Amino acid sequence: MLNIGLLGCGRIGQVHARSIGQIDGARVSAVADAFAEPAQMLADRTGANVLSAQDLIESADVDAVVIGTPTDTHFDLIHQAARAGKAIFCEKPVDMSADRIRDCIKVVEAAGIPFMTAFNRRFDPNFANIQSRISNGEIGNVEIVTILSRDPSPPPISYIKSSGGLFRDMMIHDLDMARFLLGEEPISVYAVGSSLVDPEIGKAGDVDTAAVTLTTASGKICQISNSRRASYGYDQRIEVHGEKGMLRAENMLENTVEIATPSGFRKAPAQHFFLERYEAAYRAEVVHFVTAVDGSETLTPGIEDGLRAQVLADAAAESLVRGRVINVD
Amino acid sequence: MLNIGLLGCGRIGQVHARSIGQIDGARVSAVADAFAEPAQMLADRTGANVLSAQDLIESADVDAVVIGTPTDTHFDLIHQAARAGKAIFCEKPVDMSADRIRDCIKVVEAAGIPFMTAFNRRFDPNFANIQSRISNGEIGNVEIVTILSRDPSPPPISYIKSSGGLFRDMMIHDLDMARFLLGEEPISVYAVGSSLVDPEIGKAGDVDTAAVTLTTASGKICQISNSRRASYGYDQRIEVHGEKGMLRAENMLENTVEIATPSGFRKAPAQHFFLERYEAAYRAEVVHFVTAVDGSETLTPGIEDGLRAQVLADAAAESLVRGRVINVD
Amino acid sequence: MLNIGLLGCGRIGQVHARSIGQIDGARVSAVADAFAEPAQMLADRTGANVLSAQDLIESADVDAVVIGTPTDTHFDLIHQAARAGKAIFCEKPVDMSADRIRDCIKVVEAAGIPFMTAFNRRFDPNFANIQSRISNGEIGNVEIVTILSRDPSPPPISYIKSSGGLFRDMMIHDLDMARFLLGEEPISVYAVGSSLVDPEIGKAGDVDTAAVTLTTASGKICQISNSRRASYGYDQRIEVHGEKGMLRAENMLENTVEIATPSGFRKAPAQHFFLERYEAAYRAEVVHFVTAVDGSETLTPGIEDGLRAQVLADAAAESLVRGRVINVD
Amino acid sequence: MLNIGLLGCGRIGQVHARSIGQIDGARVSAVADAFAEPAQMLADRTGANVLSAQDLIESADVDAVVIGTPTDTHFDLIHQAARAGKAIFCEKPVDMSADRIRDCIKVVEAAGIPFMTAFNRRFDPNFANIQSRISNGEIGNVEIVTILSRDPSPPPISYIKSSGGLFRDMMIHDLDMARFLLGEEPISVYAVGSSLVDPEIGKAGDVDTAAVTLTTASGKICQISNSRRASYGYDQRIEVHGEKGMLRAENMLENTVEIATPSGFRKAPAQHFFLERYEAAYRAEVVHFVTAVDGSETLTPGIEDGLRAQVLADAAAESLVRGRVINVD
Repeated sequence: MLNIGLLGCGRIGQVHARSIGQIDGARVSAVADAFAEPAQMLADRTGANVLSAQDLIESADVDAVVIGTPTDTHFDLIHQAARAGKAIFCEKPVDMSADRIRDCIKVVEAAGIPFMTAFNRRFDPNFANIQSRISNGEIGNVEIVTILSRDPSPPPISYIKSSGGLFRDMMIHDLDMARFLLGEEPISVYAVGSSLVDPEIGKAGDVDTAAVTLTTASGKICQISNSRRASYGYDQRIEVHGEKGMLRAENMLENTVEIATPSGFRKAPAQHFFLERYEAAYRAEVVHFVTAVDGSETLTPGIEDGLRAQVLADAAAESLVRGRVINVD
Repeated sequence: MLNIGLLGCGRIGQVHARSIGQIDGARVSAVADAFAEPAQMLADRTGANVLSAQDLIESADVDAVVIGTPTDTHFDLIHQAARAGKAIFCEKPVDMSADRIRDCIKVVEAAGIPFMTAFNRRFDPNFANIQSRISNGEIGNVEIVTILSRDPSPPPISYIKSSGGLFRDMMIHDLDMARFLLGEEPISVYAVGSSLVDPEIGKAGDVDTAAVTLTTASGKICQISNSRRASYGYDQRIEVHGEKGMLRAENMLENTVEIATPSGFRKAPAQHFFLERYEAAYRAEVVHFVTAVDGSETLTPGIEDGLRAQVLADAAAESLVRGRVINVD
Repeated sequence: MLNIGLLGCGRIGQVHARSIGQIDGARVSAVADAFAEPAQMLADRTGANVLSAQDLIESADVDAVVIGTPTDTHFDLIHQAARAGKAIFCEKPVDMSADRIRDCIKVVEAAGIPFMTAFNRRFDPNFANIQSRISNGEIGNVEIVTILSRDPSPPPISYIKSSGGLFRDMMIHDLDMARFLLGEEPISVYAVGSSLVDPEIGKAGDVDTAAVTLTTASGKICQISNSRRASYGYDQRIEVHGEKGMLRAENMLENTVEIATPSGFRKAPAQHFFLERYEAAYRAEVVHFVTAVDGSETLTPGIEDGLRAQVLADAAAESLVRGRVINVD
Repeated sequence: MLNIGLLGCGRIGQVHARSIGQIDGARVSAVADAFAEPAQMLADRTGANVLSAQDLIESADVDAVVIGTPTDTHFDLIHQAARAGKAIFCEKPVDMSADRIRDCIKVVEAAGIPFMTAFNRRFDPNFANIQSRISNGEIGNVEIVTILSRDPSPPPISYIKSSGGLFRDMMIHDLDMARFLLGEEPISVYAVGSSLVDPEIGKAGDVDTAAVTLTTASGKICQISNSRRASYGYDQRIEVHGEKGMLRAENMLENTVEIATPSGFRKAPAQHFFLERYEAAYRAEVVHFVTAVDGSETLTPGIEDGLRAQVLADAAAESLVRGRVINVD
C-alpha cells in the first residue's frame, strides 16, 4: 500500500485524490493546504489526516507526495520532500524559472528519489495511443507534427498577469507533447503571436493567439498553434505525419449524436471543461505514478522533461519578443 | 464503333447521350422521341439523325438501342428491337407487369440479343465497391443487409397516381440492391407502410413511408426503409453485416466542409438531386453496356433481374394490402 | 441520506454499488447475496452490513432496495419489498412471464411504493440526448426508428438455454428503446430470425440473427436488427427519422485516433465490453433513482414499462414461431 | 460565343479543352503546340484549327488565349497576346521571376486586357465554400489559417531541378490560398525545410518537407506544411479559425464506403491524382473565365495575385536559406 500525502487540496488536488481512491494499492494518508476548509473536506472524504505541509512531508505515514500547490511554492516543497526521501509527483510547471528547475534536479538526483512531472496529456488515451503506435513503427519515421490547441475561453486577466504568459502556461503542454511525439529534441524555436481575442490580454503584455515552429537536428518539423478562444469547445488535436502514413487524434465531443436538417449534418460541440476532457488522462497519470514509483517501470515524464518544456517555452517567449529564431540545445 | 439509337430524348435520354459522348468506342447515331423539339436538340448536340422509333430500330446504322421512353411503351419497343436483332439497354422498370416482362424475356431469348436492365445504383462507385468486397470475401458470409433510402421530397400526386406506387417506383431500386448484395434470392417479403408525409398520397391509395423485410432460404435478412421526404438531401445508405465484419456506404455530401460553432460541428447536407447523386453511376452503367455488349463480359443486370425486382415489388405491395407475409419463389 | 439495500452482489450489483458511492445523498447500508464471499467483499468496500435478503428487506436501515439477483428470484423479492414499503430499483427483465409481472404491478400499486425498471440504455447520454431532442420537437413527428444492435460475441450456450431467447434477453433492450423513441405503443410485431453465428444456438432452439418490425396506430414504423456477433466491437446504433430531419447516435469507439495508410483511413473499433460502453448509463440511472425516488420527479421507466417490453418480446418470439404478424394492444 | 485559342496541348491544355467543351457560350477555335501530334489530336476532338502560336494569337477567330505552355514561354506569349488585345487565361506560375511578372503586369495594364492567373484551387468547391462563408461573416474575423498539403509522391528529380524548388512549384498554391483566406497581405514569412523523403532531392538543392509561417499587419497567423509524400493519397486540407468558430475542409476520399473489422473502422484513401482531385476546380475556373471575361464580373485571381504568390514563394525560399524571418511588403 502506497501512502500518499497531498500537498494542495484545490481543484487539481481533489482530482488526484479521487483517482487515488480508485487504485487498489494506494491511499491518501495525509493532506495539507494553506486553508483549513478544503483540507478538512478532502480529509473527510478520504479518511486522511490533516497536517501542515512540513509535518506531512516528514510523516512516516507518507511514502510519496503529490504537489498540487501554487507554482511558486513548488521549489521549496520539492527540496523538502527530496531531503525527506519522499517520491514526488509534481504538477507542471515544476517552476517558472529554468534555472530553479535545474536546482531542483540537483537535489532530486542527490536524494535519489523518484520524480514525476505531471504532464497529464501524455496519458490521454488518444495521444498515448498515437505515441505508442509511433514507437511501434506504424508510420515509420516521424516527419511533421501538427498540434492545434485552443481553449474554450481566456482565463481572467489577473491570472494572465501572473501566469508567465501563453507560452509558459498554455503552450507548455504542446511543447511537451511535441517532444513526446518527435522523439528527438527541438533545436530551433520560432514564435509569432498577437492579441486578437481580448485587447486587455495585449495590454497585460501577453498574446492570446500564437504559433510556434520547432525543428530537430535530423530535420523533423513541428507546428503548434494556440488560441485562448474556441467557440465550439476545448479544441485539442494532434497529427503526426510519417514516412509510411499519418496518425491523428480528433476532439472528444459531448456525445455521438448527429442531427440532419436542411442545413446539413451537425454533431455535438467538443467537451468544454478541461477536467472532463482530460478525466481519463488525470486518472492514468496517477496510476502510472503508483505503479512505477517502486522502480518496476520507468517513471515518466521526469523532472528533466519538466525542464526541457520550460526551456522551450522560454525560447518561444524570447523569439516573439526579438522577432527571430532562437536556437536551443 | 458502337452505333447507338436513343429511344426517348427526355431527361434520362439526355443523361445517357452525354455518357455515350464520353466513350471512345461508341456514338449516338440516331435519336427518336414523340416530340420533335427534344429529339432535334439532342441531334444537334450529338450529330445524330432524327428518326421515327420504327425507323431507328430498323436502321442499319444502329447496333444497339437505349430505351428511355415512358414505361408503358417499353413492351412494344423491346419486342421490335429484339426482332430487329438490336442489343437493348432498357430503363427500369422493364414493365409494370411481371407477366409482360416474362413475355419480353421470351422474345429476347428467342432473338438471342444482349439485354441490360438499367438499375443504375448497382454502378454507383460506393455500392459497387461494397458488392465487390463482399464477393472478395472481406466480410465473409452476408447475414444482415440494411438499406435506408429517402427522397428529398415527394413527386407530384399526378406521378404517384400512375407510378404503380412506392414499392414499384421507388423501393424497386432497393429491392434490386437487396438481391445484388444478398447474393441469394429472397423467399419471403413483409411490408408495412403509411402516409405520414402528405395525406394526399394516402388518398391516392399509396404510402409515403414504408419498410420491408426480406428473408432468404439460408436465413439471411434484409431490412429496407423508405420515405418520400428527407429534409437533409437525398439519403441513400447501405450497410451489410457479415460474419467477419461490416461494410457500409455513407451519403454523398455537397462538399467536405465542416463548420464548428457553439452548437457543434456541422457538415453540408447530402446532395439533393438524383442526377447529381448518381452522376457517376449513370456514366458507369453505359460504359458497362458498351464494353460488355459484344459478349466479352457478362451484361448485368439482365432482363431476368428486371423481372425479379418487379416480382418483389409486387409481393411488397400485396403484403401491405393483405397485412401478412408473402412468399415468393 | 437514502439508505440502499443491495440484493445481489454479482457483477451488476457491484456496478450499482460503485455508482451509489459517487452520489452525495445516498449510501449502501446493507448487502445480501446467496454466496457469502461477494457479499462480504462489497460490504468491505462500502461499509455496509451483510444481511440475509429477508432481513435486508425488513431492515429499518434500508429505504430502498436494488434488485440485482437472478431473474427467477425477482418476483418474490418484489413482493416482499413492496409489502415492506421499500422503494424498488429492479434489474430487467422484471420477470420472464408477462402475467407474473402483472401480478407484481398489482402488489406494487397496492403498496404505493416507487418502482423503477432498470432499462439502463435510456440513460445512455447519446440515446437520452436523442429522446430529449425528439421531445423538444427538433425533428418534428417521428416517422421511422431504426435500431441496429449487435453483441461482440454470443454468450455461452448454457446461458442461451435459460435466457428466454434472443428476443427476451437481448432485443428486449431495443424493444424498450423503440417505445422510448416512438412515443407511442407498438400495435403490431413481425419477427424473422435465423441461426447464422453458431449452429449450437439453433440446436438450442434459439436464433442469433434477427429482425423485428413494429408499427404504431398512427403509422410510425420501427425496424430493429440484432446479431450475437460483431467483429468490430459492441455495435449499438440508433436513428430516428422525423418530418423535419433525422437524429442518429453513432458507436462509442475506443479512442479518437485515426491512422492513414495506403489502405485508407482507419479508426479504432467500438468499445467491446458492455460495462464500459454503458458506464455512464449505469451511473445515470442510479442517480435518477436516488433523485426521483422521493416523488420530486417521475421515476421512469416504471414497472409498466417492464411489462410492455416483455409483451413485445413475447410477441416477437411468437411471430418467429408462427411466421406471421402478431398484434398487441 | 467566345472563341478560345489554346496555347499548349499537353495534359493541362487537354483538361481545359474538355472544360470549354461543356460550356455553352465558348468553344476552342484554335490550338497550338510545339509538337504536331498533340495539337492535331486536340483539333480532331474539338474541331479547332491547328495554328502556330504566333498565328493563333493574331487570328481574328480567337478572342481569348489559354496559356498552358511551359513556364519559360509565358513571358513572351503574354506580351504578344496582350499586344494583340486578347484576353488571357494563364497557368501558374505566371513566370519564375517576380520582376518579369511585374513587366508582364505593365504590358497587360497598358493593353487593358482581361487577365486571369489559373490558381485552380480557389475554385475547388470545398475551398471556395470556405472562402465564401468567411466573406459572409460565419466565423467572424479570421485569426489562424492552417494549410496541410501533401503530394502522394515526389515528382522526378529532373522536374525538381528545374521547377524552382518546393516553395515555387508546390507551396505556391498554398501561399495563394493563404492570401485568399486571410483576406489580408502577409508581411512576414518564415520557412523551415528538410529533405526527409528522398536524399536525391536534398542533393538537388531542394527540400521535400517544409513548413512556413505567415503573419499579417493585423496579427493574423497562417501555418502551412508540405510534404512531397503521403502514402494515403493527395492530402489537401484547410482550416480557418475565427472569432466565432472554425471552418475546415477534409480530404476527398475515393468513395464513401467504410469497413468495420476487429482492427476498427476503415474508410477509403484520399483521391490520389491531382486531375481527379481538382476535376471540379479545373472546370469551375474556366467557367469563371468565360463568364467574367466580358467585364460583367471581376476576373479573379488576376495577374497581381500571380505576382504576390511568387513574391511569397521567393521570400520562403530566402528564409530557408538564410535561416531567418523575411519581411515582405
